[in-house]
Amino acid sequence: MLKIEGIAASAGVAIAKAFKLEHPDFTITRRDADDATAEIARLDEALAKSQQELEAIKERTLQELGEKKAEIFESHLLILNDPELLTPVRDKISSEKATAEFALDEITKQFIEMFQNMKSDYLKERAADMRDVTKRVLTHLLGLSFMNPADISEEVVVIAEDLTPSDTAQLNRTYVKGFTTNIGGRTSHSAIMARSLEIPAVVGTKEVLSKVNQGDIVIVDGLDGAVIVNPTPEVLEQYREKRDNHQRQIAEWKKLQKVATQSKDGVHVELAANIGTPNDVNGVLENGGEGVGLYRTEFLYMGRTELPSEDVQFNAYKTVLEKMQGKPVVVRTLDIGGDKELPYLDMPKEMNPFLGFRAIRLCLDRTDIFRTQLRALLRASVYGNLRIMFPMIATLNEFRQAKALLLDEKEKLVSEGVQVSDSIQLGIMVEIPSTAVLADQFAKEVDFFSIGTNDLIQYTMAADRMNERVSYLYQPYNPSILRLVKMVIDAAHKEGRWAGMCGEMAGDATAIPLLLGLGLDEFSMSATSILPARSQIMKLSKAEMASLSEKALQMQTAEEVVELVRSIGM
Amino acid sequence: MLKIEGIAASAGVAIAKAFKLEHPDFTITRRDADDATAEIARLDEALAKSQQELEAIKERTLQELGEKKAEIFESHLLILNDPELLTPVRDKISSEKATAEFALDEITKQFIEMFQNMKSDYLKERAADMRDVTKRVLTHLLGLSFMNPADISEEVVVIAEDLTPSDTAQLNRTYVKGFTTNIGGRTSHSAIMARSLEIPAVVGTKEVLSKVNQGDIVIVDGLDGAVIVNPTPEVLEQYREKRDNHQRQIAEWKKLQKVATQSKDGVHVELAANIGTPNDVNGVLENGGEGVGLYRTEFLYMGRTELPSEDVQFNAYKTVLEKMQGKPVVVRTLDIGGDKELPYLDMPKEMNPFLGFRAIRLCLDRTDIFRTQLRALLRASVYGNLRIMFPMIATLNEFRQAKALLLDEKEKLVSEGVQVSDSIQLGIMVEIPSTAVLADQFAKEVDFFSIGTNDLIQYTMAADRMNERVSYLYQPYNPSILRLVKMVIDAAHKEGRWAGMCGEMAGDATAIPLLLGLGLDEFSMSATSILPARSQIMKLSKAEMASLSEKALQMQTAEEVVELVRSIGM
Repeated sequence: MLKIEGIAASAGVAIAKAFKLEHPDFTITRRDADDATAEIARLDEALAKSQQELEAIKERTLQELGEKKAEIFESHLLILNDPELLTPVRDKISSEKATAEFALDEITKQFIEMFQNMKSDYLKERAADMRDVTKRVLTHLLGLSFMNPADISEEVVVIAEDLTPSDTAQLNRTYVKGFTTNIGGRTSHSAIMARSLEIPAVVGTKEVLSKVNQGDIVIVDGLDGAVIVNPTPEVLEQYREKRDNHQRQIAEWKKLQKVATQSKDGVHVELAANIGTPNDVNGVLENGGEGVGLYRTEFLYMGRTELPSEDVQFNAYKTVLEKMQGKPVVVRTLDIGGDKELPYLDMPKEMNPFLGFRAIRLCLDRTDIFRTQLRALLRASVYGNLRIMFPMIATLNEFRQAKALLLDEKEKLVSEGVQVSDSIQLGIMVEIPSTAVLADQFAKEVDFFSIGTNDLIQYTMAADRMNERVSYLYQPYNPSILRLVKMVIDAAHKEGRWAGMCGEMAGDATAIPLLLGLGLDEFSMSATSILPARSQIMKLSKAEMASLSEKALQMQTAEEVVELVRSIGM
Repeated sequence: MLKIEGIAASAGVAIAKAFKLEHPDFTITRRDADDATAEIARLDEALAKSQQELEAIKERTLQELGEKKAEIFESHLLILNDPELLTPVRDKISSEKATAEFALDEITKQFIEMFQNMKSDYLKERAADMRDVTKRVLTHLLGLSFMNPADISEEVVVIAEDLTPSDTAQLNRTYVKGFTTNIGGRTSHSAIMARSLEIPAVVGTKEVLSKVNQGDIVIVDGLDGAVIVNPTPEVLEQYREKRDNHQRQIAEWKKLQKVATQSKDGVHVELAANIGTPNDVNGVLENGGEGVGLYRTEFLYMGRTELPSEDVQFNAYKTVLEKMQGKPVVVRTLDIGGDKELPYLDMPKEMNPFLGFRAIRLCLDRTDIFRTQLRALLRASVYGNLRIMFPMIATLNEFRQAKALLLDEKEKLVSEGVQVSDSIQLGIMVEIPSTAVLADQFAKEVDFFSIGTNDLIQYTMAADRMNERVSYLYQPYNPSILRLVKMVIDAAHKEGRWAGMCGEMAGDATAIPLLLGLGLDEFSMSATSILPARSQIMKLSKAEMASLSEKALQMQTAEEVVELVRSIGM
């Protein structure tokens, strides 16, 4: 028996035979090919086979995972047919007596290197896509028997160095019980896919591929981040129990799907979901979301070569509102800039992008972009319960300017005879310390607050949460953060407004008792966290949590707060 | 008459004839020089003349402006004698029949380009130095009559594109009444020099050089940032009055040099100075500083190739403490990292350096560096009234760790028989929002707070103050900032501690009434602001300012606060 530690990337326990998914050796040496016509024919055949495969994968992804995920394979198909890539490959075959595989490998290497050296994350991703496509074509050219994950037909745990987008999309949920990889973190592509497929996964083990043999019995513990190879019968029994408990727990949670969220002492709070695209709404409803607490509209602007038109936006907003059938939908206006770049906007590099020209700051300057979004939102407002939220508000003047632009567009639309809802709530993200400290003044003018803890914590602690050397300062339970949260909630209630939270903290089991105690009205989180959170809240008394949080506010360190919450047995 | 707007860079009004300081045309074309020996002799002669000039400038700067400023010319002399530069120049003359000026120009251009492409600010500065030196040598080689600013012998206002370090250091204070430039900002080299020379200056006018003719009568209004060319007699009279009023004001202020700072209703506050090197202490005493509120120790670590030894540091701290003769000296421990790089520490690039691994974060990791500084401070503590302050404290645990290291070094020194003071106060900078919000808890463990508003404002507003596109959010008067300041002061007083401020806000005439009203105990500012601040505070009633600040805390925007303060006639 061997236990390997890793990063818990997707909850649950899987027990099955190991299936090692290893990519073959693609080392290609130069040799002369005398018949260029034959080589080009080989190339075309390999391209055609790859095309067939990709179309099948795309179709399947579309049906099982939705449009957004299927777009990856649309890009792969585009690469496969790109004359800018294929013409130089064919030229190289004709003029240099190169084999098809050598020519393809050489030319794509140049493109990949070029993309990787680009500053844009978007173009860097193109490098990963091109690598994936090239491997696929080379597999056919080299006659390699590349094990296709789609062909797996018995229950297995997949073991791999890493999983490419194609690999993950092809995993058959019926047979693949879990997976584990050498590399990756909680936010890597494969981890995100595992969570959306609801397959237990442990990533970043560093060594699982070399330590496991084909056919070993493997336990993937996605709850605690461990992989056990060839367990003893006792250990196997323990993990079967752990797996069954987790599954029972999930079944238990599923029963809460249609239940309103109430604390043990009968106080209702709203559990909503954070979404990125209209396709995510299905997951919200399946997981019993009482609303959408944060619709991040950035995705509409990304992965394209120009700004999305008013109609493209209108259709997306309308779809979400309609699907949510009258439940509240909080749409956050464009939060781009800083680290989140749009290649077609040509934004200057900044020394400290997290403290830079982004979100509402950019929108109040580029009012052309902002007005288009506001018009699309206003037009969609009649299809459901729309709430509009401005990000990165630091001063009341910024809110007033944004509101004035909204009212101006509304007036224009009405005068054009377009129907617009008259009950749109207008709120702000509270993610900048100044706004939390001055929340009592903001509460006189806004309809609601949503606390964005990811940014609020990083500004309040002055620590970039992406910077590993200061990540110890990203402290959601620091009493200073709890005090700011309290200021915001109290300010809202004093003026009869509601206060929500849409950062990661809202779905965190250690934070939930404190947030309930502080009086938070709405908790917005990833859809899969809603049912566990509902189950937890239903076991808590709000009155008791209020005294708990009073104590927490008077503590000195984050560590003391965590200890306090643990003492109630969460 | 013509009025040109610019940036007020140094207070006062100057009226005199225009003296245009224009650098000659250094365009050099390639032509063959047949006698290489003669060219090398010309080069050596020009180098020797430049050396004489630089030594004279260095000596004069040393006497008039102190060691720190003279160091610039030490670097210039090093460049002038650098074989890595001169050998390739001589080689080019010998092997390519190049003239001395062409060879020098070509080779230095390569060096300058290389330095400019370096990421380090330190090396970029080397490029500016090399450009300055090259121009000097070329002036001799080309036989140009480069007007030497040291030769000015009548009362003038200097008009220039920009002023180089050599230019500024050579300005004769007897004759140069003021200056104005096309480029630069309040923190550019020439602006800083103007303030330390106490010469009125207006920078960043964009066009003054092209609009003014040699000998025009020019008024430089360094109070309001304007340049008036050939004024009408009425305007001239107005500005003479403005100048005389300002000079009377300064004379008035000088009388307050030995006076303790008291409000109109008899409350004493302490006015201290921010310093960077032991040489700055003279200025503190001349301006009636009641202490040093911030001794930035970074300069000890900069402009060198390795860490400063314990003895180098000990001597610097001892000098400052002795010169201050028992008046309090707050020494801030090393605040380096992020944007302030030390080339010899090899710190990794960060995406958001202002939210990165700097100051106490770095010192708690590199305890070797930190312990050396703490030992030097402890050894110096017996020579005066030392207070030690840790920068960038975000959590109580960080303060506790830093304090433990200090106590550990103290114990070691005592056991080695070294004398250490037992009355060193130990405090923290409050420049991170979390620390302000949790000040009541910190006040139980620290001896004092010093609010660092420059950083506190940028973190609280989530806006990089160096980024022009978001500089409108750098709002010292935002009510949220005032509320945080109040939290810190109240927390200190509740535990019997004192609270000071060492950011730019402490010396700002609009902020002073509010800070007095909020109960700030110590104001630390640039030495030249102390007397005006004292004069202002002596005219204010603390009780009245307390009600003023109560009102400000309840306002909605920074603009309202400014209006409120203006209403009392400041």
